[in-house]
This record gives sequence, structure tokens and C-alpha cells, in this order.
Amino acid sequence: MDKDDIKKLLEAVKNGGIEIERAVKEIEDLPFKDLGFAVIDNHRQIRTGYPEVIYCEGKTVEQVRNIIEFMLTKENNILATRASEEMFNAVKEICSEAKYNKLGRTITIKKREETLSESYIAIISAGTSDLPVVEEAYETALILGNKVEKIVDVGVAGIHRLFARLEVIRGAKVVIVIAGMEGALASVIGGLVDKPVIAVPTSVGYGANFGGFAALLSMLNSCANGISVVNIDNGFGAAYNASMINKL
Amino acid sequence: MDKDDIKKLLEAVKNGGIEIERAVKEIEDLPFKDLGFAVIDNHRQIRTGYPEVIYCEGKTVEQVRNIIEFMLTKENNILATRASEEMFNAVKEICSEAKYNKLGRTITIKKREETLSESYIAIISAGTSDLPVVEEAYETALILGNKVEKIVDVGVAGIHRLFARLEVIRGAKVVIVIAGMEGALASVIGGLVDKPVIAVPTSVGYGANFGGFAALLSMLNSCANGISVVNIDNGFGAAYNASMINKL
Amino acid sequence: MDKDDIKKLLEAVKNGGIEIERAVKEIEDLPFKDLGFAVIDNHRQIRTGYPEVIYCEGKTVEQVRNIIEFMLTKENNILATRASEEMFNAVKEICSEAKYNKLGRTITIKKREETLSESYIAIISAGTSDLPVVEEAYETALILGNKVEKIVDVGVAGIHRLFARLEVIRGAKVVIVIAGMEGALASVIGGLVDKPVIAVPTSVGYGANFGGFAALLSMLNSCANGISVVNIDNGFGAAYNASMINKL
Amino acid sequence: MDKDDIKKLLEAVKNGGIEIERAVKEIEDLPFKDLGFAVIDNHRQIRTGYPEVIYCEGKTVEQVRNIIEFMLTKENNILATRASEEMFNAVKEICSEAKYNKLGRTITIKKREETLSESYIAIISAGTSDLPVVEEAYETALILGNKVEKIVDVGVAGIHRLFARLEVIRGAKVVIVIAGMEGALASVIGGLVDKPVIAVPTSVGYGANFGGFAALLSMLNSCANGISVVNIDNGFGAAYNASMINKL
Amino acid sequence: MDKDDIKKLLEAVKNGGIEIERAVKEIEDLPFKDLGFAVIDNHRQIRTGYPEVIYCEGKTVEQVRNIIEFMLTKENNILATRASEEMFNAVKEICSEAKYNKLGRTITIKKREETLSESYIAIISAGTSDLPVVEEAYETALILGNKVEKIVDVGVAGIHRLFARLEVIRGAKVVIVIAGMEGALASVIGGLVDKPVIAVPTSVGYGANFGGFAALLSMLNSCANGISVVNIDNGFGAAYNASMINKL
Amino acid sequence: MDKDDIKKLLEAVKNGGIEIERAVKEIEDLPFKDLGFAVIDNHRQIRTGYPEVIYCEGKTVEQVRNIIEFMLTKENNILATRASEEMFNAVKEICSEAKYNKLGRTITIKKREETLSESYIAIISAGTSDLPVVEEAYETALILGNKVEKIVDVGVAGIHRLFARLEVIRGAKVVIVIAGMEGALASVIGGLVDKPVIAVPTSVGYGANFGGFAALLSMLNSCANGISVVNIDNGFGAAYNASMINKL
Amino acid sequence: MDKDDIKKLLEAVKNGGIEIERAVKEIEDLPFKDLGFAVIDNHRQIRTGYPEVIYCEGKTVEQVRNIIEFMLTKENNILATRASEEMFNAVKEICSEAKYNKLGRTITIKKREETLSESYIAIISAGTSDLPVVEEAYETALILGNKVEKIVDVGVAGIHRLFARLEVIRGAKVVIVIAGMEGALASVIGGLVDKPVIAVPTSVGYGANFGGFAALLSMLNSCANGISVVNIDNGFGAAYNASMINKL
Amino acid sequence: MDKDDIKKLLEAVKNGGIEIERAVKEIEDLPFKDLGFAVIDNHRQIRTGYPEVIYCEGKTVEQVRNIIEFMLTKENNILATRASEEMFNAVKEICSEAKYNKLGRTITIKKREETLSESYIAIISAGTSDLPVVEEAYETALILGNKVEKIVDVGVAGIHRLFARLEVIRGAKVVIVIAGMEGALASVIGGLVDKPVIAVPTSVGYGANFGGFAALLSMLNSCANGISVVNIDNGFGAAYNASMINKL
Repeated sequence: MDKDDIKKLLEAVKNGGIEIERAVKEIEDLPFKDLGFAVIDNHRQIRTGYPEVIYCEGKTVEQVRNIIEFMLTKENNILATRASEEMFNAVKEICSEAKYNKLGRTITIKKREETLSESYIAIISAGTSDLPVVEEAYETALILGNKVEKIVDVGVAGIHRLFARLEVIRGAKVVIVIAGMEGALASVIGGLVDKPVIAVPTSVGYGANFGGFAALLSMLNSCANGISVVNIDNGFGAAYNASMINKL
Repeated sequence: MDKDDIKKLLEAVKNGGIEIERAVKEIEDLPFKDLGFAVIDNHRQIRTGYPEVIYCEGKTVEQVRNIIEFMLTKENNILATRASEEMFNAVKEICSEAKYNKLGRTITIKKREETLSESYIAIISAGTSDLPVVEEAYETALILGNKVEKIVDVGVAGIHRLFARLEVIRGAKVVIVIAGMEGALASVIGGLVDKPVIAVPTSVGYGANFGGFAALLSMLNSCANGISVVNIDNGFGAAYNASMINKL
Repeated sequence: MDKDDIKKLLEAVKNGGIEIERAVKEIEDLPFKDLGFAVIDNHRQIRTGYPEVIYCEGKTVEQVRNIIEFMLTKENNILATRASEEMFNAVKEICSEAKYNKLGRTITIKKREETLSESYIAIISAGTSDLPVVEEAYETALILGNKVEKIVDVGVAGIHRLFARLEVIRGAKVVIVIAGMEGALASVIGGLVDKPVIAVPTSVGYGANFGGFAALLSMLNSCANGISVVNIDNGFGAAYNASMINKL
Repeated sequence: MDKDDIKKLLEAVKNGGIEIERAVKEIEDLPFKDLGFAVIDNHRQIRTGYPEVIYCEGKTVEQVRNIIEFMLTKENNILATRASEEMFNAVKEICSEAKYNKLGRTITIKKREETLSESYIAIISAGTSDLPVVEEAYETALILGNKVEKIVDVGVAGIHRLFARLEVIRGAKVVIVIAGMEGALASVIGGLVDKPVIAVPTSVGYGANFGGFAALLSMLNSCANGISVVNIDNGFGAAYNASMINKL
Repeated sequence: MDKDDIKKLLEAVKNGGIEIERAVKEIEDLPFKDLGFAVIDNHRQIRTGYPEVIYCEGKTVEQVRNIIEFMLTKENNILATRASEEMFNAVKEICSEAKYNKLGRTITIKKREETLSESYIAIISAGTSDLPVVEEAYETALILGNKVEKIVDVGVAGIHRLFARLEVIRGAKVVIVIAGMEGALASVIGGLVDKPVIAVPTSVGYGANFGGFAALLSMLNSCANGISVVNIDNGFGAAYNASMINKL
Repeated sequence: MDKDDIKKLLEAVKNGGIEIERAVKEIEDLPFKDLGFAVIDNHRQIRTGYPEVIYCEGKTVEQVRNIIEFMLTKENNILATRASEEMFNAVKEICSEAKYNKLGRTITIKKREETLSESYIAIISAGTSDLPVVEEAYETALILGNKVEKIVDVGVAGIHRLFARLEVIRGAKVVIVIAGMEGALASVIGGLVDKPVIAVPTSVGYGANFGGFAALLSMLNSCANGISVVNIDNGFGAAYNASMINKL
Repeated sequence: MDKDDIKKLLEAVKNGGIEIERAVKEIEDLPFKDLGFAVIDNHRQIRTGYPEVIYCEGKTVEQVRNIIEFMLTKENNILATRASEEMFNAVKEICSEAKYNKLGRTITIKKREETLSESYIAIISAGTSDLPVVEEAYETALILGNKVEKIVDVGVAGIHRLFARLEVIRGAKVVIVIAGMEGALASVIGGLVDKPVIAVPTSVGYGANFGGFAALLSMLNSCANGISVVNIDNGFGAAYNASMINKL
Repeated sequence: MDKDDIKKLLEAVKNGGIEIERAVKEIEDLPFKDLGFAVIDNHRQIRTGYPEVIYCEGKTVEQVRNIIEFMLTKENNILATRASEEMFNAVKEICSEAKYNKLGRTITIKKREETLSESYIAIISAGTSDLPVVEEAYETALILGNKVEKIVDVGVAGIHRLFARLEVIRGAKVVIVIAGMEGALASVIGGLVDKPVIAVPTSVGYGANFGGFAALLSMLNSCANGISVVNIDNGFGAAYNASMINKL
């Protein structure tokens, strides 16, 4: 119900086309229902290029299949995160163009091609154990319509490998750093580039790592400027955030 | 030592103006000293508009004064955070145009006017107790050359006040949300806007708040997309990050 | 041993029907044994409408079956929480009217119909992953003799959906809010309704969620008034508490 | 702007007393501003008997004085919590009927007398060290218009004293239990009464008490039913919640 | 109301000296009031040799003075723990034989001499920083009527000093070990003696000591048998416990 | 090497039966080897009535069997804790009189009968879920040669059941209280009896119980005197400690 | 690109063998690419005697096999830690001289014999449950070319066994102490030897051990000097560190 | 009592200069008293170059003064850590050559000059706020007789400054890295040098730094090899450890 609709309603009131009692009721309902709903709906889901997203953890194979079946009717791109291979097989049956990233545990379905921006997101990680998070971020960034550069295996323990890739890192519009253990990579990158850095602590490590808590604290306390942090292992969140920035 | 300097050196080598042995030495020293220094220097401090920053916590009044005295020679804008009133008084003596934000505990010295971008950063907070962090973020964003809109006192407990300011929030290029206690404001804003949100947990609260840890966890676990988090009470870090995004 | 029994005893003393020594003994034993027992027994289990409750976690199938078999002799309604499907099958054999809520993992046996109060409990949750806790609370509230309104999938990230259901939420006598991740829903509801809100943090989430600890802290620190909190995933406890309030 | 106001506006539209363009504007602004504001306002502050509340922690004496000065214009009762004696003195100057509870650190100003309900809230605590929280809860419950029974110094270590007061505890409509150290009192009360129990952990204790965290965990894990918990030392929150229940 | 009182009451009932109705009432009140009270009272405070104890932390000087003034009327020994020097001075005014242990922060008043048992309690500690806890334990053990041997400064880092005192340690009936930092002393003593060991972690240390939490965990996880633990810095609790054992 | 051996050595020195150099060597080795060894050996393992103990967690079936096979040669009683049924079967093959307590996961082998003391240990617990720890404590206390009274299912939520057993509890020389969830039972018992209480927190519970941490903190912070605490689920440790006290 | 290469380049510049523009480019690239790379490479991997190391946790069997296949081409010794038996079998197929330490979960491949230093590393542990970490440290120390003395089963609860081995412990150049539970062994050793002690907390224990956190805190807070700590269960890290020290 | 003393005693036994009974007594006392004491004493304090150390935290000015007065009689060098200026003034009165390091809070007294080793310890830190810990480490290393190189202000955020000092860092025999905030510096240094690195987390930082816990976890989880960690702010411990290594 937009401005014009209100105007029409009032005109109907004026010329007696609607009873005042009913008009009062419609106006009373307006703030938190129709208009409110439309506003929100507009601002996220209906916009061109935003995929439908489903977080599969804690859902059954059947639930995931049903939700995606419904989503398919809307002709948007679709991204399912934390999806098991079994879920993918169930989705594959109802949608042959679905693709599965085994490491990143994502299902992606491309219904229309996005026009990519010129700028790109750099996704940097330290070790091979961080790859699942890297892949989740990568698939998310792609389906949201971004160019992406992956630079993996450039940990702090062998800092020269990082310097060798510095040019491509500095060329990005926004940088995602994914690191477990002590997460020092985020600080080092933060000190070397002049772009927003989104740090993703991973649960890679053991002992006093406490499931990624060590890397999380490390990144939050970084002495380098320009770093913000998302939840542990949250590759999706980092890429979603980076995509927003990349498209500014 | 930049490109031209290297060229001159090589020309001197070619026409015998310098001995090869000495040239070898100069080049060998170059990576990690002069050039390296210059690269970094270039990419951050010397760039137009970047202020010199000093974090005053744990420094003596005298140290702060001396560091700023040295900074003043470079003719850059200057920002001192976590500065006490006593520090300000000491700085005032050597630089009369220094300004103090008592709530935000910042000293700012403007040596040149920045051209502001059209876009702006929105800084949103819930309660009056969050104001010190708001002010630190505000002063930081200003001295970094951004337009800023402050929207304070729009907590979740009275959500209608937030909706009344929704338009100006949605108009921002990037949004900083500053909240203590349970930090729910970040999630609510994250669900209402389509811009990157940088969340700053504050140490405001008591009991099981654990010095801001409750708000920190809350923000990291936000169910809304597009939110990244900085350290507790880190208004400076949020604004620095937001400024990077605002200037993209 | 109630008032009348004491009277009878004293009359027997008076007319010599019992020796004083024996009467002293009976009275001496009275405080912590018979009467004490009766008082407690009266105040909870024997009262009309209170079901027998069994918490199945950590018990064997056989133990659960035996306890329920014994309970069945008392003709009360029965509620078993955290019950596995295997437990249900064992119970089904001895009581054909037993019902199983698979999501909520509850077994309920209705021996008599309660007269429901006019007022109702609203159970609100954010995401589908919270449903097991919702269902435990729902079955508990029902067997305790309450009318219940379930409003699920109204998370903070899409706040318009919440507003669309506001009327039914505000109509409740007491509100249960079940939320995982950052638990911000409790604060938002607390700011919108004027009834007691019982918040249940769930262990839904990952990373820095720490098994529901993030939501727990968030709810305890809520900036909205009128919110109290029960243990993580404790749908039963919330409903028990809400039922007490709903029946006042 | 309530229902009647809308009706009047529409009637003015109908009979030409207002231009349609201006009416559109008023209606458009209505959801998130006037009506929204009114709705919330209505549901909480304006309702008879609800005091204005101000949380003084982290505010300056001057801020507190100014806020209360403004509140005084509305002729509502006023409650200030976590108020220092210095704050009280400043308030006293502008409002001679202000009263200070030194232990509970509350300032109360009574502008009109509430009709008290017949039912009462019982506030129970274990030791004299919990008294500040008791007093905060007590003053809050009173100004919100409740009858209150205080039963202090009935800790678990001398359980007979508790039993001696059982009748008055059981007579309450809702019970607040305030306890520090191991907080066992909440469980014991929960096992003895059949009313909703709101437990308040206090920061009283030392060593592995961790500022009330031990009591908080203890209460959340209570084996007794019907207990919900508020934040550490949050006497105000408990009383606010209890008042809601007491007035049902 | 003891056995004899009940007998008298029944005799009065028998010979008509009291009406049955009134006797019913007295008996009904009995469990949780008079008798209950007496039972508890008897079992702890009235027994010969048990001092009155007052925990001064969080109490005002005036409160401490008043409580002790009342206690003095009962002619028992008195122990006040966590008492400031100012408190002592106030007590001194009303009781000249009061003694103050400055390190242990205890006030003791001896009203009658206890007959000490032959056996003794050994109190062992590692460093001079643990002395306040040692002294609190020492004064407590003394006033409770025990012989005590103090063996201080026998830390693990110089284990030979410990061995030099082994005989006196092994001669004790029960051993209190007081240690901060990593609390290893408890395990070492536990491995060397064949008596119950009560371990007291102290808050002595810094960094990752976390206010005694490191020592607490260390002691709870001791690989030696026969060790139980009390709260951090709880010298009183350890001595109270040890006294119970020493008097068996 | 005892006193007599030293004497013999010196006599040999005196009458030339041994060279001084060799005697020096033997004496030099003495402190930390032979004598030291004997002292320790004597004080624990060789003493009549002490069983050999083996902690099976983290050992293989084969290791357990081999260790017990070796122990059997010494003709002492044997106690194996945290033993799986598979381990028991392996032990059964080499020792037919071995007995298995399935709930308590203990293997016991009685080689000689102990003379029991007159006094007894009371083992008290709240719920059926605590039974594994109860049984471990029970078997340990028995094999160490104690009389034991088990009082289970007397939780705080139904405090009358506890009072009904008070006499037998108060008759014990030392009391073990085993409780999970909020562990309030320890405080209640501590307030009712005048004997040393050893509290065992169990890992029974969920949510904010944190694997027994809630009960552990609760017990450490108990407001009742005379309580000391052992590690979570450590039934063995409690019984070992209680046995030491019971035999004093 | 080393010193000689730079010299050659400059000579080519001097005698016109290379254009200045191209030489500028080569020099400009030098710091962070070629030379940087060489420096790092040299300082660790290429040095004689350093094995190639692979951390297998979180890698697939195939990945481990492929990485080792590649490593084999370099003719260095190889160490794989946290390797499963399945991984070993896969490696065995491509390299028959590979050896597996089942307890320590290491695969080692010896391509050339190291000359061992005279000095040795002592590896000390308390219980059989710590053996996996002991073996990881042992294999690491060996393949790095050190002499090692293992002294296991010398826990604090039987301190005489430790003293019996003191001579061999004191003879080492550096000592590794591996202990779980309360980790007191590190402090005791630290007080007895005058060599650097590297402490490894293990996750052995239960209850309030928190996966090795108790031992970690204990070791960090050790009252003995000369102790430093590595991550929980990090036998590899301790041995790597000790090897560096042993070879000084 | 050393080897020679034993020999003399035995010779006295042989030639009848001492009675066997008395010799037995002396030998019996020897292990845990004289010899034991001597062994320990020898191995630490009496050795040339080891200073007497006193940790002043939690001691009174008078205690510190008295302890040092006693130490002065032994003619060793003396180091007091965590000493206040007031303590220094008191020490100065009894020993004019005492020196105070205000930042590091150390008092040092040099009684004899040590011969320094050729090798040196490098002490590296990131920011000026870490200087107190740097200075404590520095003074400790000096008084223990080491050459030291301090390299401060080489944080990760400006990594080029670190590279500029790489040569002097790599030249050290052992490296101490002192860093607060996220402690990433340790990992970066660990990846660049081939020497043992002792990492000291400092409590510098705020918010989610948790008093140095963030840096501590970061360092324990370092992905670089060769790093071990000491307690937060423990500059003394790091230097003591480094000195042991430097002197090997």
C-alpha cells in the first residue's frame, strides 16, 4: 500500500465510495502489516540478483528438498549452505542443473546470469584445512555476482609466499582472510593492504584453540586497522558482507 | 628510494659514477629498508587525507605530548584516541587548534580540510551509556574525511523510534551499530538495511554482561546477514573500517 | 497425617485409648516424615490436573517403561520429555493411547480431560531449527491444561513477519520466546508486549555460539523489561512456568 | 493518535475540512511515528500506575537531574535505580518529595497513589549481603503498585528459619528469590511452593563465585520446576516481571 | 519444645488441663517452628566449643559491631572473618579482650577455654603471599579448639624444604594445604601423606592465574588421592572442615 | 634401606668389610632412591587393607588385563574404576572371583576380608541419573573396608524425602553428597548435619550446566560450613577421602 | 637471486648487456619475490637435517599420500604427525621404508642418517595415558636428529620414582615434561633441574579438567623458573623446540 | 654436606672417631635435610652468576627491605621484580648501589661483574605499551649475565620495520617476543627465524582481550614452529628461560 493507494482511499472517503469505519480499519492495519511487509520484502528478496539462501544444518533432507522445490518456482538463483551430499542428491532429482561443492558443502542453482562488476573480492587463507570455509565463501561470492580471486596456502609461517601474491591481494576492492590456529594472517594482511578486511576465524586447530575461539579473539584484537570479524567458520557471512561492499 | 632513484643509481653504474660493489650493497639493503618503508608509508600515512593516529591508553602525558609534537611537523591531520583531559591540556600548549571531545576522549587537530564524499556513514546506538563509543567513532569518521549521521537512543526496547529514523539509516553507504547489554540492535538493523553493517559491542551493562562479552557474542551470532564485528568499545576501529568502505 | 488425625490422636490420649509414650513418639516423628510428606505431596502431585512428569535423558528404555507403568496406576496424565522413539515404542506396548511428538521428543498420555482456562500462552520462535524446543514447550503447556498459540518463523532478520502476528502475541496472558543464535527476538518481543516473557535460549547456531551460551547471555542482558530466562533448550521448564502464570 | 483521531481526520476529509494531500502526509507518517509512538507509549508509560524509570549507572549527576526534571512535568510516579547519594541530593533540590533508599540505591517520587491489588509479591533472600538487591526489588515492586512481603535471612544453611516463614511465602502470588554464593535457596523454595519463582543471582561471594556467575548457573540448572532467572543483581528486573504477574 | 514438653502437653490433654483444639494447633505448628528450630540450633551453635561466626565482607562497621554486641550476650567464643582494622577498633570499644590478626583479618574473642584434643591440624603453604589465607585458617582452627602446626614457605620449587618438614606433616590427623599460582603443592603433599588433605587455592598469582582459578582447577584435578577442595581463599572453610575431622 | 641396614653398612666400614669409596657411593644414592622408595611404598601400598587401584579410562582391554594379572600376584584386594564390560570379561578369564558393577563401571576382586569399623559413610544423591557416580563411590568405600549407607533419590525439589532419612544421615561419621544440575543438595545437607561433607558434582544436566561446571561452582560456593569438593563425577576420589576420615 | 646475481646484473648494466629500464624492473621486483623467497627457503627447509613435516589432521588419506609422494622426490627425511593407520597403509604402498608409531600416530621416513649430537633431550611423563603425546614428541625428536631419553610413569603422586631417575633427567640439555590432570609434574621437575623445561599439557583427565585446560593453566602459572609451555597435546611442537635448543 | 664430608664421616667411623649410633643419625637425616638442601642450593643459588630473586607483588615495603637486607649478606647479585618506587627508596637506604628501572619495576643490585657470553638474547616487542614487560625481561637477562639486543616497536601492522631489523634478530641465540593485543608478532617471528622463540603475551589491549588471554591463546596456537609460551606479562620468566638457553 503506497502513497497513491492512500490517496485513492481518501478520495473514496471524500466522495463516499467507502464507509469511514472500514477506512479507519484499513489505515489502522497499515503500519505493521501490508506496507511494512512490502518495504522489507522489497529491500532484500525481490531485488534482482539476490539469490534465495537456505542454511541446511539441522534440517532434514526432505525439508531441504521441499524448500528448494518451492524456491525454484520463483526463478531466482539459489544457494544452500552446510548441505550434505545426500541433500544434494535429493535436490538433483528435482533440478538437474544443481551443482555441489563437496569441500564447501554448498549447493548452487543458477537460474540467470549476473553481470559481474569489474572489481573483485580476494579470498585468502593459510592452510589446506581452512579450505571448506574458503569454498563456502567462494561459492557465496560467485552466486551473489562477484569476481573472486582465491589465494590459498599463504600462512604466516612462510610469509614470503604471501608477499609473492601481494599485488593481486592489493588489487581487490575488499579482502576476506580465512585463518584458524592463531589467526595471525588477518593482522599481517591488515597491515599490508589499504582495503576493508573481513576476517573469518576457523575452527581448525587443537588444544587451547577451543574450536576457533583463539583465532576469533586474535582477530578481534588485531593491532592492524580496517579489520572486522564474522563468526567462526562463517564463510557465507563473510562473502555476503564482502559482496555488499564490492557492489558499492 | 623510488623508481627514479633506482634508475639514477643504475645510470651511475653504467657511466662509472659509482663502484659496482657499493651499488650491490645499496640494492641489497633496499627491499626491507628504504623501498619497503616507502611502499608502506605510501600506502597509508602519506596518502592525502589520512590522519596520524595515536592510541593514548597506557602512555604517559609526556609521551603523548612528544609524539604529537613530532607529528605536527608532518602537517597531517592528527587523531588521538583514549586521551585524558590532562593529555589534551598538554597538547593544547603546543598546538592551540587542538580540540577535545570529552565524551569520546579524542583529541583532533585539523591541518588541512578534506573534500568530503557525497555518501555518508550512519552511526546508530541504543542508549546514552553508549555515547562515549559513539563519539570516538564520530570523531574518527570526521577526521578521516567522511560525512556522518548520528542516530542515538533508538534501542530495541522501543523499536518504533528506530523505524522513525529508518530513512536516514537506509540512505547511508555503510552503517555502524553501537550497542551494549544484549546487542540486539545490530540484528534488527541488519534485518532492515541492505548495506554493510559494522557492529561495535560496548561494555555497557552489568552482571552476566561480562564487560561486553554478551553483546560481542550476540553480534557474532547475528541471524541477519551483512554484519561484521569489531572489538568491544572499539569505536575507532569501526569508523576506520567504515571510512574505507565509504570511500570505495 | 492431617489436622483430623491429630485431633483423633489427642482424643484417644484423653480417653486413654493410647498410651502417652506412644503418642509422644508419633508426634515427634510427625514434622519431617508423615505430615511433611503429605504437605509436599498435596501441593504438587495430587492436585487435579498436574501430570506425572518423567525426564528420560540418561535413563534406559526399560527404566522409562517401568516408571510409566507405575505412573499409569495413579490415573494421572503423564508427560515424558527427552524421550527417544525406542522409548515410545516400549511405552506404546503397555499403553495404547500414548502419543509421541517426534520433533519435541515427548510422550504424552491423557487419562482425563482438563478444563482449559480462557487465557492462552503464546509460544514464539525464530527459525525452523528451534522447533524441537517449541514442540517440547507446546506439549508441556497442553498436558498442563493450557490453550496455546504457536507463532513460529518470526525471526528478527525479517521483522515485518513478527509485526504481522503482533495482535495474537499481545493477546496472550504470558509469552514464551524461543530463540537460538543471538537470541535478539526476546528483546524485540519484550519491547512490544506488556506481558511476562519467558525466554528460552536454544543451542541452535555454530562457532561462537558455544552451545546456546550466546543466546543465554543475550537474553539475560536484555534491555527490555519483563523478561526472565530458563536454561538452554529447556522448553519444558518454560512451559511449566508459563502454565503457573497462565492459571493465576 | 488513536482510533478516534483517525476517524476525525477521515470525517474532515469527507466534509472537506482538510485537503487530501495533507491527510495523505499525516497518514503516511503515522505508522512509525505518531501512532507507533502512541501504541508503545500507551502500552507502557501512560497506563495508570506505571512509573517513569531511569537507570542511573554510567550517567552523570547532571544528566540524571535533567532527565528527572523533564519526567516531573508528566505527573507520573518516578523510579531511579542505581542512583548515588549525590544524585539524590541533586534531585532533592528540584523535587522535595523524592525519597532515597540508601541500601537499594533507588530514588522514588510518588505523584499519585496506586490502588494496590489484594495479592502480594514475596521477596526472599538468604543473607544480609543480598540486601541491596532486595531493596532495589522492594522499591520497584512498591512503586509499580504491589503489596510486598520481605522475608530476609532465610538461607539454606539454616533451613528451619525458612520453614518457619513458609506460610507467608506460600500465600504470595509470585515469589522473588534473591541469593548469592551458590544460590541454592531458589531450588529449595521452588520445591516448596507452587507459584512462579523469579530467581535473582547476586554477586555476593568470593573466589570461584565469579561475580555471581556461580549463583546464575545454579539457578538456571535448578532441579525444581517453575523457576526463571534474571540477570545478576537485577532486583529491578525481577520486580518488574513479578509485578506483571501479580497484576494478571 | 522437646520430648518432655510434648509429654507434658499430652498429659494436660489427658487430664483436661488444655482443650484439644488448642493442643492440635500447638502440635501443628511444631515441626517447622519450635522443634525444628531447636534441633538445628542444638546441633550447631549451642554445642560447647562452637564459636559464633560472622563474615564481615560487605557489612558496615556498625553492623559488625552490633552483631558482635548481641553475640557477646551469649557467652560463646566469637570469630569474625574478613574484618577490617576499622571494624576491630569498633569491636574493641565494646569488648576489650577482642584480638585482631592483621594478616588474617580475623577478630577473635575468647569467652571460655576449650579442652584441646591431642591430635593436631597441619597447615602448610608455599609462599609468603599465601599468608593471609594461612592466618585465617589458623585463627579459625584455634578458636574451634584445635592444636595446629603451621609449616609455611615449603613450595614445590624448593622441594627439599618440604621433605625437611615431612615428619611433622605426617604426624597430623588432617592436613590443610594452601597454595596459589599452579597449586602443585597439594598434589605433592597428597602423594606423601596418608591423611585427608583439604586444599585451599589462593588468588595469589597473575596473568593466566585468573584470580585463583588455575590453582582451583589444578587441585580438583590432582592425580593424588585423598584431596578435597574448598573455595578460593577460603581459609575459614578449610579450617572448619579440618576441625570437624580432627575432632572425630 | 632402613636404620638397621645403615648400621650394618657402617659396621662394615668400621671393620673394613667394605671400602670407603663404595660406602660413600651407597650413602650418596640413598636419599632419593632406596630409602625414599621404601618410605613411600610403606606408607601407601603395603599397608594392610589398601587395595590396588587401576583407573581404566584411556587404557586398552589388554593393558587392563595385564596390569591386573600382575596385581593378582600381590594378594591384595583390587579395584578397577571406569572399566568397560569388555574389560571385565577379560579380567574374569584370569580371575573368576572378579565382580562387576555395571552402573558404577567398577571391577572388584576381594583377596582378603577387611575388619570393618563400627562407623559408616553415608552416600546421598538426588536423582537416578547420578547413580553411576554413587555406585563408583559405593564400591570404592566397600573395598576400602567401610560400612556404607546409600540414600538415593532425595533431591532438593522434594525436600521432605530428605528429612525422612535425616536420622541415618546424621548417624554417619562422614557424608558424601553426589548431585548434578545445580548441586543444591550439598548445601542443604551441609546445613543439616554436623559432620564433614564431601561433595561430588556430577555431569548430569544440560544447557548451561556445562558438563557439571554449574554443580561444581555451586558446591564450592556453598553457604553451609563443613563442605569440601572433589572433581566432577569423581565418586572414587570422594570415597577414598571419606574412607580416610572414617578410619581416623 | 643472491649477491652474485646482483653483481652480474650491475656488470651487465655497466657494459650495456642489459637495458636500464629492464634492470630497474628486476630490482624493483626483488624484495618481496625472488630474494625474499630464497632467504626464507634457505633458512628452514633446505638446511641439512630438517625433515619435511606434514600435519595430517583434517586431511584425507589421498591428500596425505599425494603430499608425501611429492616430498619423496626431495630426498629429505619425512615426518607425518596425527596420521591414521589407514594413512600409513597408503603411504606404505609408495614407500616401503615408511614406519608407523601407532601410539604416537606418526609416520617417519628416513632418507639419510643424521649425525647425532652428544647431548640429549629428556622426555618425562606421569602416566600411561600421556603416552601418545610422549611418542609423538619422541619420534619428532629422533627424526630431527637428537638423542632422547624417555622417562615415563614418574607422576607426582609417587614422587620417589621421580627421584630415582633424577640423574638421567639432570644430565639432559633440555627437558620435555608431558603431563595431564593437574600438570604438577612440570613444577616439580622445574624445581629440581637447572635446564630449560618445555611443558606439554595433555588432555588426559576428566571433569573440571576441561580438555587439558587445567594442566595448561597449571603449567603457565608454575612457581618454578625455567618453564615454558606449548599447546595442549602438542608433542611435536615441544620436540621441535627442544631440538632447536639441543642443537645450540 | 658433600661427597668429601661423607668420606670424612666414614673415615671417622672407620678409625673410631665417631660412634656408629651418631653416624647413623647423621646419615639418616641427610637425604631430606642437609644433602638435599645442598644439592638444591648448589644447583641454583650458589652457582656463579645466579642472582637472588625476590618477587615483590603482595609484599609490604618493610618485608621487601628486610629480605633484601638479608640477601645482601650473601654477596650475590640481587634482582627484585614488580617493585614499587617506594620499595626502591627503602632499599636505597640500606644499599646505595641499588638501581631502579621505573618502567620495568625492577630493583637490581650488582655485587660482582659477570663474564658475559658471546651470544646474545634478542628481546622484540610490538608497541610502546609492552615496554614494562620488555624492561622486566631486559633487566632480568642482564643481571643473569647475558648480552641483550632490544628491538622494540616492530609490530605486525607495519611489517617492514620488522624486516629492517631481521639481521640482528636472526643473529641471536634465543629470541623473546613480547606482544599484547592479538600477539601475532610471535608467529611472524617464528616463521622468520630458526632459533627458539619464547613468547610473552602481555595484558595490553582492551575489550575481548581479556587481560592478555587473547594473546596467550594466539601464541599457544601459533602455526609457526619453535615457539613456547610463558605466563601473561611474565617478562622475568621469559628472560630466565632464555638465559638458561643462551648459556648452554
